[in-house]
Amino acid sequence: MMTSRRHYIFPTLLLSTILLSPTHAADFCVADLTTQTTSGYTCKNPTNVTADDFVFTALVHSGNTSNTNKASAVPGFVQQFPGLNGLGLAVARADIEPGGAIPLHSHPAATEMIYVAEGSITAGFISGASNVVYVRKLNKGEVMVFPRGLFHFQVNTGKEHAVGIASFSDEEPGVQLVSLAIFGNDFPSFFVEKTTNIDEAEVKKLKVLLGGSG
Amino acid sequence: MMTSRRHYIFPTLLLSTILLSPTHAADFCVADLTTQTTSGYTCKNPTNVTADDFVFTALVHSGNTSNTNKASAVPGFVQQFPGLNGLGLAVARADIEPGGAIPLHSHPAATEMIYVAEGSITAGFISGASNVVYVRKLNKGEVMVFPRGLFHFQVNTGKEHAVGIASFSDEEPGVQLVSLAIFGNDFPSFFVEKTTNIDEAEVKKLKVLLGGSG
Amino acid sequence: MMTSRRHYIFPTLLLSTILLSPTHAADFCVADLTTQTTSGYTCKNPTNVTADDFVFTALVHSGNTSNTNKASAVPGFVQQFPGLNGLGLAVARADIEPGGAIPLHSHPAATEMIYVAEGSITAGFISGASNVVYVRKLNKGEVMVFPRGLFHFQVNTGKEHAVGIASFSDEEPGVQLVSLAIFGNDFPSFFVEKTTNIDEAEVKKLKVLLGGSG
Amino acid sequence: MMTSRRHYIFPTLLLSTILLSPTHAADFCVADLTTQTTSGYTCKNPTNVTADDFVFTALVHSGNTSNTNKASAVPGFVQQFPGLNGLGLAVARADIEPGGAIPLHSHPAATEMIYVAEGSITAGFISGASNVVYVRKLNKGEVMVFPRGLFHFQVNTGKEHAVGIASFSDEEPGVQLVSLAIFGNDFPSFFVEKTTNIDEAEVKKLKVLLGGSG
Amino acid sequence: MMTSRRHYIFPTLLLSTILLSPTHAADFCVADLTTQTTSGYTCKNPTNVTADDFVFTALVHSGNTSNTNKASAVPGFVQQFPGLNGLGLAVARADIEPGGAIPLHSHPAATEMIYVAEGSITAGFISGASNVVYVRKLNKGEVMVFPRGLFHFQVNTGKEHAVGIASFSDEEPGVQLVSLAIFGNDFPSFFVEKTTNIDEAEVKKLKVLLGGSG
Amino acid sequence: MMTSRRHYIFPTLLLSTILLSPTHAADFCVADLTTQTTSGYTCKNPTNVTADDFVFTALVHSGNTSNTNKASAVPGFVQQFPGLNGLGLAVARADIEPGGAIPLHSHPAATEMIYVAEGSITAGFISGASNVVYVRKLNKGEVMVFPRGLFHFQVNTGKEHAVGIASFSDEEPGVQLVSLAIFGNDFPSFFVEKTTNIDEAEVKKLKVLLGGSG
Repeated sequence: MMTSRRHYIFPTLLLSTILLSPTHAADFCVADLTTQTTSGYTCKNPTNVTADDFVFTALVHSGNTSNTNKASAVPGFVQQFPGLNGLGLAVARADIEPGGAIPLHSHPAATEMIYVAEGSITAGFISGASNVVYVRKLNKGEVMVFPRGLFHFQVNTGKEHAVGIASFSDEEPGVQLVSLAIFGNDFPSFFVEKTTNIDEAEVKKLKVLLGGSG
Repeated sequence: MMTSRRHYIFPTLLLSTILLSPTHAADFCVADLTTQTTSGYTCKNPTNVTADDFVFTALVHSGNTSNTNKASAVPGFVQQFPGLNGLGLAVARADIEPGGAIPLHSHPAATEMIYVAEGSITAGFISGASNVVYVRKLNKGEVMVFPRGLFHFQVNTGKEHAVGIASFSDEEPGVQLVSLAIFGNDFPSFFVEKTTNIDEAEVKKLKVLLGGSG
Repeated sequence: MMTSRRHYIFPTLLLSTILLSPTHAADFCVADLTTQTTSGYTCKNPTNVTADDFVFTALVHSGNTSNTNKASAVPGFVQQFPGLNGLGLAVARADIEPGGAIPLHSHPAATEMIYVAEGSITAGFISGASNVVYVRKLNKGEVMVFPRGLFHFQVNTGKEHAVGIASFSDEEPGVQLVSLAIFGNDFPSFFVEKTTNIDEAEVKKLKVLLGGSG
Repeated sequence: MMTSRRHYIFPTLLLSTILLSPTHAADFCVADLTTQTTSGYTCKNPTNVTADDFVFTALVHSGNTSNTNKASAVPGFVQQFPGLNGLGLAVARADIEPGGAIPLHSHPAATEMIYVAEGSITAGFISGASNVVYVRKLNKGEVMVFPRGLFHFQVNTGKEHAVGIASFSDEEPGVQLVSLAIFGNDFPSFFVEKTTNIDEAEVKKLKVLLGGSG
Repeated sequence: MMTSRRHYIFPTLLLSTILLSPTHAADFCVADLTTQTTSGYTCKNPTNVTADDFVFTALVHSGNTSNTNKASAVPGFVQQFPGLNGLGLAVARADIEPGGAIPLHSHPAATEMIYVAEGSITAGFISGASNVVYVRKLNKGEVMVFPRGLFHFQVNTGKEHAVGIASFSDEEPGVQLVSLAIFGNDFPSFFVEKTTNIDEAEVKKLKVLLGGSG
Repeated sequence: MMTSRRHYIFPTLLLSTILLSPTHAADFCVADLTTQTTSGYTCKNPTNVTADDFVFTALVHSGNTSNTNKASAVPGFVQQFPGLNGLGLAVARADIEPGGAIPLHSHPAATEMIYVAEGSITAGFISGASNVVYVRKLNKGEVMVFPRGLFHFQVNTGKEHAVGIASFSDEEPGVQLVSLAIFGNDFPSFFVEKTTNIDEAEVKKLKVLLGGSG
């Protein structure tokens, strides 16, 4: 039909000058994990991108909580979920058995927000400026935010398995676990003691516990 | 005890020069919603901040889905959840009955990521660069990301009530609902027709439907 | 001459330690369009950069307005004008015949500002927060700004050919044309109807008009 | 009519939870010029915002070029055009008579891009990294970009009045005019000579010429 | 003299349209510490700003090192040095006696770089991603960088008083001292033990040592 | 021992899902100087990174001040100190003999802060907005900040060798030396005179002095 054909032609003409070629996408940049830059990764060719690149399925099931922490954490950061590259968000699932805990940690590059999907979680963070501890028991459906870079933790003080869905304000939030960073490596005991005031016997014990040496 | 007293003095001395006074917090900036700036709101006095400022409870229950969309959306943006101010994250809960939908919309200032907490949701977004539609049915526990500024939607094509927990890469993501923006205001029909190719009768009908005029 | 020679030596000595080698330029990063990152493209070797890399000549003439929109848009985004890479600006030329229009669209990543170089243009945008439409007729020499991510349009309601020069707050602003995004692809009609309230007959008609299917 | 009423209710219900109150706008932040922050100004109450806040009319006419520079520059920065606050763009109009020049200057906070609207302009900038000068004669309709913070200039080497429309990658680009910064104030001559190698007699002469002292 | 008068007029005419009024400064924003925003403080009126606002003299002398840490840290963050507001830098002076240490800590919002001005300092940081400890003894004049958000420390393993001048990539870097954050407040011992694996007796001892309770 | 083995297993299980593989580091991105992007360089493989990558030793000694400026500047920008890549800081050492000067210059991309490590330095900067000169004599241990993009200088008006340690708010601050940019290249004298008001004889003399031509 002539009219529609004419109309059909128009957007082609108009938009061919606006729309970019399929090999360039301003909209997204699915990570090609082989080359890292200061702001993420280089982009996968958009012609090879499909809807699956924007979907992450690893949070469907709980991680393994059969450990002394009685907890697991499954991340969906850019390394696991390359579609997030450059988009400023990441995700993780925490499962915590009653009496279990996600250890004290910080994310050097991101704020975290946790949504309690199952059970209840007692969570908190510590202000660097005032050293005040902000703690709350969160019930199912409640949300708490942990400002970027500050120490925070989640403990299951309830009687049911708890599930938290965390989101982060950067696709590469980083993680620094306090005890693991201090005791789970070859950080010399002399420096640990000097810079934390924790005594020698305890440092040795925790180094054994957390796999450290030195 | 002398030793501990001496020790007790040291951090006070050392840290009094590092730690800021309680009226200033580098860590967070809970919004005082009375004064808005280009990058959020001015900060509530930190001495009045409590753990509750970092907790959001409005997502515990479903919003009202007794509408023709069979859906509801409850936001936890900085206006509802002032603790998010400056932290680069926001949250929302979507409830969608079978056959219901969150209408086509974009967030001018943020990427969105949705986690399916109950039921299943068919979701998708449209690339601006290539006009390709990326659609996927998401089951419980799956996550999909919608890059910032692009049109996206969520439909419940399943048989159960569905719940999605969305997070956003900015505490003030903004929302632009496509049909409401075009038909739900006094945007003159002449301009609507000129700039969308939707014909006059349909524009009139949708203006009535969505509460618009002109 | 001795004095000048001595002087000539000094800046060499002083500055050789400051000035970077010719293969590195902190000042600019002309795009090598073969490798895309989350924040643009990798840089062309500065030794191959000339003044022409910073000049864009494609806006000298009008694009083709012999289409049903009676309008054309010629972009100078980073893909067309690689010298813009990393500099946070882009440009475009819009030509609109009397009665013509640049369709309703948004730029996911940038604010747009238009300067009327010839004729007059009636332009406007729609707030996402309040759904208010801000419209103004702009005469030659007037400027209007459309905040980032919001729907906006330009119509020639005058009697002369109109030319607008648009600038953008990012070298890769992106473009999402409302009708083309909804009707000009294989976005299933079922979802279009569900998520826009536009009725089936109109969806079909517009899909034909704008080259879509499904 | 019942159906429409029912439909009318739905978006209200759905969207009342999404749309923000009229006193808060995520979309824009028209400057209230009385309070300045590190990232612009606080926002005017959105209920008092009209389309005129987004329109700038001061570029319609040429500034006064009856000066020894034979040139004028009219800025549309956030102070003159408060609607730009937070939007990352600014604008200016340069008029240059034949033989006239916009003096060598830099914008500490922004990239500049110039579009030649009338006549021709010879423009250029100087790389800090390599000290290379990039110069081009620009004809009507051509565009040149000057990377942020670098010295640049515009000269009318043609025979007609020239008009350039400049846009900037920040609403508050700043301006530092080289000669005025050195000679047009009370910068002590001793320091001028020490730090520029310009000799005493010339410094004195230019201080008189440009209104400086000391 | 006529010529100079004519010349004197020109820049006034040309520049009066460019230069902003004295009550607005695009260049800097000295903090008015009474109103805090998400990105710093509101600006002091530029007409009241003097050179002294850009100078910080509190680092001239050592802080008091007569404490068990044998160390002191004097910050020049925006709260102490308001001229830094919005400028993206801060400074501090660390003095460490032989055998003394700046305790393990992180800066939630900034990278730190330390220059050894006197003596020698053994410094290091711990990667969050790999848990690797990067340690080096730094002699006078050497510089080390500690990436943002990661735990780091400085110890004087030499025989002379050591002075380090630290700079930070944000005017409000924040500080979180590991032991003080864990033991120097009312963070309940139950949670400390659960989330750090440090045993009860040690927690109690350190709470006493560092002034904590609970 | 069973307990410790069990404990040793736990963090492995828990953290293996959190900690990234050694080939990816979220924490830092030591520059591979062969590929430049708009925001720095691509990253060196983290498995090849050692503590030395984060240490810079070139500032231990003075640069050569046997030049007419009686001054030297040794930079530690990302090109010299690749560990800074993406970390938002750079460093430099200035040595100035009595009567010597670091010439008037600006850093297009960074704020500078100088710490006087030896002697005294008279330093200042010029506001672009108001053209006011802010000057101060700085004694040993004092710090001054020069806001980003503005002209500044350092002169030794004292009687001893002076050393300044400068830090910058970007790892690639750039440098534009005023006289060198104007006179030390092939910038045509015609344009220099037109755009600076410096007269022909002086331009010629300075071109000879600073190695320029044209």
